[in-house]
Amino acid sequence: MPLLPVLEGLHSAEAFNAAFLSAFLDRVRQIEKRPLELRDALRGSIIATVFEEPSTRTRLSFESAAHRLGAGVITVADPKTSSRTKGETLRDSARIIGGYADLIVWRHPRDGASRLVSQAAGVPVVNGGDGRLGHPTQTLVDLYTLYREWGGFQGRTVGLMGDLMHGRTARSLAWGLTMLGARVVALPAPGLDWETSFETRILERAEYRAGMVSHPVLRSWTGSEEARVLEPKGMLQGTLFQEGTPVLERFDALYLTRLQDERGAEADRGVYPGLRGWQLDDPLLADCLFLHPLPRRGELPEEVDDDPRARYFLQARNGPVVRQAVFLAMLRADAWSLPPLTSLPAGNPEHELGACPNANCVTHEEAIKPPWRVVGRRQRLFLCAYCDSQLGVEYAGCRSSRRVHPLHSQAALRIRPENLRPFRERDEALREGYVWWGS
Amino acid sequence: MPLLPVLEGLHSAEAFNAAFLSAFLDRVRQIEKRPLELRDALRGSIIATVFEEPSTRTRLSFESAAHRLGAGVITVADPKTSSRTKGETLRDSARIIGGYADLIVWRHPRDGASRLVSQAAGVPVVNGGDGRLGHPTQTLVDLYTLYREWGGFQGRTVGLMGDLMHGRTARSLAWGLTMLGARVVALPAPGLDWETSFETRILERAEYRAGMVSHPVLRSWTGSEEARVLEPKGMLQGTLFQEGTPVLERFDALYLTRLQDERGAEADRGVYPGLRGWQLDDPLLADCLFLHPLPRRGELPEEVDDDPRARYFLQARNGPVVRQAVFLAMLRADAWSLPPLTSLPAGNPEHELGACPNANCVTHEEAIKPPWRVVGRRQRLFLCAYCDSQLGVEYAGCRSSRRVHPLHSQAALRIRPENLRPFRERDEALREGYVWWGS
Amino acid sequence: MPLLPVLEGLHSAEAFNAAFLSAFLDRVRQIEKRPLELRDALRGSIIATVFEEPSTRTRLSFESAAHRLGAGVITVADPKTSSRTKGETLRDSARIIGGYADLIVWRHPRDGASRLVSQAAGVPVVNGGDGRLGHPTQTLVDLYTLYREWGGFQGRTVGLMGDLMHGRTARSLAWGLTMLGARVVALPAPGLDWETSFETRILERAEYRAGMVSHPVLRSWTGSEEARVLEPKGMLQGTLFQEGTPVLERFDALYLTRLQDERGAEADRGVYPGLRGWQLDDPLLADCLFLHPLPRRGELPEEVDDDPRARYFLQARNGPVVRQAVFLAMLRADAWSLPPLTSLPAGNPEHELGACPNANCVTHEEAIKPPWRVVGRRQRLFLCAYCDSQLGVEYAGCRSSRRVHPLHSQAALRIRPENLRPFRERDEALREGYVWWGS
Repeated sequence: MPLLPVLEGLHSAEAFNAAFLSAFLDRVRQIEKRPLELRDALRGSIIATVFEEPSTRTRLSFESAAHRLGAGVITVADPKTSSRTKGETLRDSARIIGGYADLIVWRHPRDGASRLVSQAAGVPVVNGGDGRLGHPTQTLVDLYTLYREWGGFQGRTVGLMGDLMHGRTARSLAWGLTMLGARVVALPAPGLDWETSFETRILERAEYRAGMVSHPVLRSWTGSEEARVLEPKGMLQGTLFQEGTPVLERFDALYLTRLQDERGAEADRGVYPGLRGWQLDDPLLADCLFLHPLPRRGELPEEVDDDPRARYFLQARNGPVVRQAVFLAMLRADAWSLPPLTSLPAGNPEHELGACPNANCVTHEEAIKPPWRVVGRRQRLFLCAYCDSQLGVEYAGCRSSRRVHPLHSQAALRIRPENLRPFRERDEALREGYVWWGS
Repeated sequence: MPLLPVLEGLHSAEAFNAAFLSAFLDRVRQIEKRPLELRDALRGSIIATVFEEPSTRTRLSFESAAHRLGAGVITVADPKTSSRTKGETLRDSARIIGGYADLIVWRHPRDGASRLVSQAAGVPVVNGGDGRLGHPTQTLVDLYTLYREWGGFQGRTVGLMGDLMHGRTARSLAWGLTMLGARVVALPAPGLDWETSFETRILERAEYRAGMVSHPVLRSWTGSEEARVLEPKGMLQGTLFQEGTPVLERFDALYLTRLQDERGAEADRGVYPGLRGWQLDDPLLADCLFLHPLPRRGELPEEVDDDPRARYFLQARNGPVVRQAVFLAMLRADAWSLPPLTSLPAGNPEHELGACPNANCVTHEEAIKPPWRVVGRRQRLFLCAYCDSQLGVEYAGCRSSRRVHPLHSQAALRIRPENLRPFRERDEALREGYVWWGS
Repeated sequence: MPLLPVLEGLHSAEAFNAAFLSAFLDRVRQIEKRPLELRDALRGSIIATVFEEPSTRTRLSFESAAHRLGAGVITVADPKTSSRTKGETLRDSARIIGGYADLIVWRHPRDGASRLVSQAAGVPVVNGGDGRLGHPTQTLVDLYTLYREWGGFQGRTVGLMGDLMHGRTARSLAWGLTMLGARVVALPAPGLDWETSFETRILERAEYRAGMVSHPVLRSWTGSEEARVLEPKGMLQGTLFQEGTPVLERFDALYLTRLQDERGAEADRGVYPGLRGWQLDDPLLADCLFLHPLPRRGELPEEVDDDPRARYFLQARNGPVVRQAVFLAMLRADAWSLPPLTSLPAGNPEHELGACPNANCVTHEEAIKPPWRVVGRRQRLFLCAYCDSQLGVEYAGCRSSRRVHPLHSQAALRIRPENLRPFRERDEALREGYVWWGS
């Protein structure tokens, strides 16, 4: 079961790049301007929507898009009515439904489920949200909402606020924004920040660096006046010689998210970051657009609804047209050629690294050993090829020289990717006949 | 959030009037005669059906109508799979789905929900049944079923039987029948009659009066040989000088309903009114059509199914074509101009009257204070603008004269509606600076 | 409520015959070769799918077929959201939905439900699976999968393996295979064989005989090296004079099924028959296609998925095109005339035989007495006209001669079907004035 890199990008926002996103957003604009031209574009095609987690919004948004293009829609809205209750594996379900439809949208509670579905289905698969890995079409919707306002992202500062550990929309948006050159300020609820390895991957892919900024308002959100900012390396110049933490001057947009308590997240609601009435008048937010993937909780009070900076209902309204563009790109490649997505390294089929440490990884439900992939140039990360969780690798062998090195040694970094053989323990390597070449 | 009177009529049968109904029923007849002409009438449009209460019949009837016109359909058939389980408000849900569809059909267990949905959605909304307020398209189906038989309603006598307290179909039909000039005989199960204020509103709107009729068969339904009849004032003449209660001579139609026990209704099943075999031969029912909105219970035994007077399956069969006419009227106003609905007074946005006394009112779920509206000329009723429940108003102030009067005084009746300021207690008025002008 | 023989065949595979099946399978091949020609064939029509048992696969397969033909689809995917929860009978539901759609696909947990639905609906009904009676479109899919490989069925040997007591797909396939001339080897899990009366009916309809075959591999499936084989009577000649049980030489196809535990089936999983890795190399299976209606359990391990003999995912993929042919045959009879199905004897409306002994028969849920039908020439079986269960008949009367005989006597066999009057006890006959004419 090799991974299919050509479809990878619809599973994770990590595959987005600037060329793809720019072309895509421009296409959406064209579709929005001429809605009726495409109403028969997918006539005779069938799109399946399979939602194994409760959702109204996302499913209806996809289905609305399908109907606007004239496609037929078949749907599984309630996991309890599916064959999965008879004990079927996700792979079997995907393969079956792939025989009934020309494209599948799949939502699943497990991290990495979309990639696994895609391997089995035999037709294009769109990730409708899988665990906390990502929600790439939501990211396209979020980016399009900002693109319509701004035209571009250079020099814009966007705060991502809330449950950054479990919130797939904020995590996916971080990939999109950094690909397009925006500054990202991380405003996690206390204890709900994203993992270091996640940020490391973004920084390297985007050629960004992490810094700090400060502002008194930040304390009301995260408990601290300082926050991490991810910014293009080129932006460094102005701040290199500055003493202390630079003061944050403005937000161009604030992306709020709710606590993902259905994923086991817990927070003291009293300190969960959200908009308070008094903040609306702060100069920090004077020109700040407010976005939220919805549904919301207390973090976004209804008094903001009539504020001219609110964009979250417009965001939702942009869902169908963005998803029309996704369907057209996947099913009508002739008419809708786009720059390629960034291929992620394919998974290594040898599965030598044991079980994935992420208890919510789809590999556990399906009782399979994860293939791994390796990312990073200066610091190599070995990830589960399904859920992107970091696997416990301490040593790197070279299949060509038959030597094994500590993972972070210079010698290990020089091993070509195709020769890499990771080990969790040195003894494993020695048992396989590798020669220890550590310092 | 002002109410939108232009859509009001699809929330409540109260907005129907004779001109609208006559034109509408004639249109349905035309559509029924030429079904294929319209099969592309709504091609490219999307209709959403959102059912937050269990229903097969009504949802499928609407969806069948949508498909017959070539529209795309997106649907939420099971409330447990919706975003509402993540804590979303009804208003947010409505606003979101309004971004995905051109028209929404919404069913909800709360009284007044349809009006609230309509304010938020931004697109036309059809009440698919909300609490016990009403079910206006069912009324159109019921009226059409009779219209096809009779051609008109003048001089017809229709019995409404069963749970008139909770049964929205019978309540809504009472509005429709009285607008069209039929006599209505109320045959409630013991303890399950509609409220006096409901009947008062009908009598005044329709220019009807209430009287009594008697017949021995009635005892088997309601426990009494006498029943209330609502009839046009013009019909009085023949009975004015009659001694005692006039005898009911015939029913032209009998509208049976089941006990609404999912709304908390309780009845001793032994006395719940329904058709018994021996009644089928009574001259009272010799030419009586039997209608029922279905599903049924014991009140309508299967032995009636083959009776030539049975119309309840035909009623169901009429559902799609009537709803086709509704969709066309709302989405193709160019081709389907109809006389206007009767605008109900818009809700007063000042919300001075505290919480709605109806525990099932949608305002409680949404944590909002109800706006009120006032109906009645000779006797003013202050109603919750969502659920039509009577609010506890005892005093009426005049914003112009700054005087306050007892609600039912002549002085109070002379206050112009736009100057009305209701009070629950006199002291409230005095605290606001009104001068007491009571007797 | 007379049964409608013209629709009978879509309720049970028992109505299939060689002429119908041959013509049908050829049609499917034609549709598969020219998929786009028919994409508007059912435009303007509405197909309802009502699934009162959990299913993804079958429902989506039907809906995919409907969309491929341009039909509109209305669906009930979850029985808990239906009017049936308000206490509605199956007949009322069927009659209502028949008013909304041009064809209904219905799945129901009760044996015989499809026939009952068909009587009430007033439109063509396709059995989407009812209890363990049958699943005729699955049989058409299974046959088509083999037809594409083989072109014909004469001389082919197919093993049916697993829960033959409750598994409707294997039971239905037995009818189809024997109509087309294939040999069928029954490989039931211990204790989960089909009833003798079921096999008796097949043997007589198909003009088959039952024999035994042996092979060591069989022991690993059923616990015995010998198995029953159903084969055309013409095949006897070669084996008539053979001593002992003939050895089975090959399987052309093996049809695996899972334990139907949702129907109360129980098995010691350790002995439930299924493919084991070591069997893949046995010459018995050298050219054997592997089929399974899916979903699967342990009886079909994933290691078989990549085996060149595996056909079960192709089977699923054939679902929509086969169901397209079904819809066209039922709704476009003009363009798709097929040889007639075999009419089953219509049910006798007199209901004299008391309650059906099958506790899962739909007659119990609907509180009706079953009509009966009689099958068999040399040995008469009285069956419930809904669920095909054998009714307890011991005596046969003749309405013409007014004599009553033991059921299996020669005299009883000479009674014409239209004169037959079955009795459970002799005293019943005597009380009705019949004269005892036993030996």
